[in-house]
Amino acid sequence: MSLETITWKNGRVKLIDQTMLPQRLVHIYPTEVKTMAEAIKSLRVRGAPVIGIAAAFGLYLGMRRSRARDYRRFKQELDGVIIYLSGVRPTANNLFWALDRVRKKVEENSHRSIPELKKILLAHARSMIKEDRAICRRMARYGSRLLRDGDNVLTHCNAGSLATSDYGTALGVIYKAKEEGKKIKVFADETRPLLQGARLTAWELTKSGVDVTLICDNMAAKVMEEGKIDKILIGADRIARNGDVANKIGSYNLAILAQFHKIPFYVVAPVSTFDLSLKSGADIPIEERNKDEIRQIGGKRIAPVNVKVYNPAFDVTPARLITAIVTEKGILKPPYRKSISRLIN
Amino acid sequence: MSLETITWKNGRVKLIDQTMLPQRLVHIYPTEVKTMAEAIKSLRVRGAPVIGIAAAFGLYLGMRRSRARDYRRFKQELDGVIIYLSGVRPTANNLFWALDRVRKKVEENSHRSIPELKKILLAHARSMIKEDRAICRRMARYGSRLLRDGDNVLTHCNAGSLATSDYGTALGVIYKAKEEGKKIKVFADETRPLLQGARLTAWELTKSGVDVTLICDNMAAKVMEEGKIDKILIGADRIARNGDVANKIGSYNLAILAQFHKIPFYVVAPVSTFDLSLKSGADIPIEERNKDEIRQIGGKRIAPVNVKVYNPAFDVTPARLITAIVTEKGILKPPYRKSISRLIN
Repeated sequence: MSLETITWKNGRVKLIDQTMLPQRLVHIYPTEVKTMAEAIKSLRVRGAPVIGIAAAFGLYLGMRRSRARDYRRFKQELDGVIIYLSGVRPTANNLFWALDRVRKKVEENSHRSIPELKKILLAHARSMIKEDRAICRRMARYGSRLLRDGDNVLTHCNAGSLATSDYGTALGVIYKAKEEGKKIKVFADETRPLLQGARLTAWELTKSGVDVTLICDNMAAKVMEEGKIDKILIGADRIARNGDVANKIGSYNLAILAQFHKIPFYVVAPVSTFDLSLKSGADIPIEERNKDEIRQIGGKRIAPVNVKVYNPAFDVTPARLITAIVTEKGILKPPYRKSISRLIN
Repeated sequence: MSLETITWKNGRVKLIDQTMLPQRLVHIYPTEVKTMAEAIKSLRVRGAPVIGIAAAFGLYLGMRRSRARDYRRFKQELDGVIIYLSGVRPTANNLFWALDRVRKKVEENSHRSIPELKKILLAHARSMIKEDRAICRRMARYGSRLLRDGDNVLTHCNAGSLATSDYGTALGVIYKAKEEGKKIKVFADETRPLLQGARLTAWELTKSGVDVTLICDNMAAKVMEEGKIDKILIGADRIARNGDVANKIGSYNLAILAQFHKIPFYVVAPVSTFDLSLKSGADIPIEERNKDEIRQIGGKRIAPVNVKVYNPAFDVTPARLITAIVTEKGILKPPYRKSISRLIN
């Protein structure tokens, strides 16, 4: 299924405001780069692939009213907006990847007029939606080979329709397996603090008729020990050259539990998530978010007002705990340093 | 510190209503066995040692207006109330242990008059508070030997003043170490679904001036990997003859992470938590609680209304993952089958 998480309709960017789910399906229409930046920062739009697309639209929104009269000035402004958008969230590689691609696209078209360049920015952002759709489908086709009829899959956070412009990375694999007639049951970690599993994954899987059971993050070990999990599938926010994977906080936790229970642990992510400039996961910048995300839930205080809090939004799973990485170019197996450089360069 | 979690004052049982923390420190005064049973069931009063004491008071409340005129009739009624209270929560051994002790106490005094037996019930419940205090102090003295100046300790759920009538099991060890002048920093798992870590542990440690940092349960692996944790200390709800430990859901999770990161994993629990009738943890009944504990937080819905949920309140940590078990009779080391039978029989 595709939820049209991000689209271009009637001359406007249209986004699902994911902070309102599952209570209400509300759309927002950012018209300024600042509104788009706020939407990314506050997770109204989230999920590595969609963050890339949203950033490309943000760049267009930031430039469409530019009064620059020559390329040099236009490019200066563009670089400023790129720097601004790059600062919004530090971990997902797709943000930087998308902005970098647009920059190159503009540089290649330096001979064009300013109105033409603006059109290129929009056309590029729109093309990313289509491209992401094709990538999701290819990843899902590869990934589905890993799932057998009757498998129970545990997933973390949301790597589905709401994280991409199509049916997702990790959840795409499940949707595809279902299309192929395999019966797959899913256990979804609620994924504290922002509850993407409870709010988003449980919602989209239910909507798609996939059998889903919600658990708290700390129940994963028990569920594995009871023999209820055959495979683990997660998405990724950034993957280093050696195969270390940054993903939503709690993924590393799961990978250790998976190893202990001898359960395969798969990462599903497009090539745009790989950052070959980084030697290992230790180099991936990890976002720390507002402490009140932990002290409060939905505005309700659940902890002492001023208690100290540590709130890293991501963790890094070392490559040695990852059974395979599914990309749109094929399935990568260890040793990752080798398989990544072979497939991606 | 002692919070007087459960006391007998001016002819009434006085309890902290722990569901109201940390927002408000509210006391309740159950006058009927049913009110006490509800307080235990809904976790107004919780923590294995306190559950035992609350059950003993519940038994008194259930019998103090008995119209039985002879021992046989009194004993029949008592057995009925014991069966009723035994059904309130299935996992914590201390509940059954406490009720069983009162039953034996009454049987030993079968020659007494009914008013005398009622007095014995009350006196016994009150004596349990004192006894628990002494046990906490002894456990803390032993346990403190395991902590060094400067240690960072991770704990789960609440095994502190609010779980005992004194300063706790796992947290008692920390309070004692602090009294001895050791600087101990604590990381507290928030402990979903009912957030005993965020609501209770963070609250009582802050109140006692202990340096505490709150994290979500799924952050534990990252915090360990960053070298921030020297030791893990948790309480227990039931311990089998082989040393398998049932404790709040997420404890097993932590034990696996601790082994992976080579961090000692300690359980602190009184002898009343051991159930020598059980060969292993597989025999410990695990309570499953209401699905809305996961679907909602503080009455606010965070997941699709009818999404399937699995909500086990406890898990079992196999003995092989436990470095030592601290009791009031000393510190037990593996092999536990041997050390438990030696120390406890």
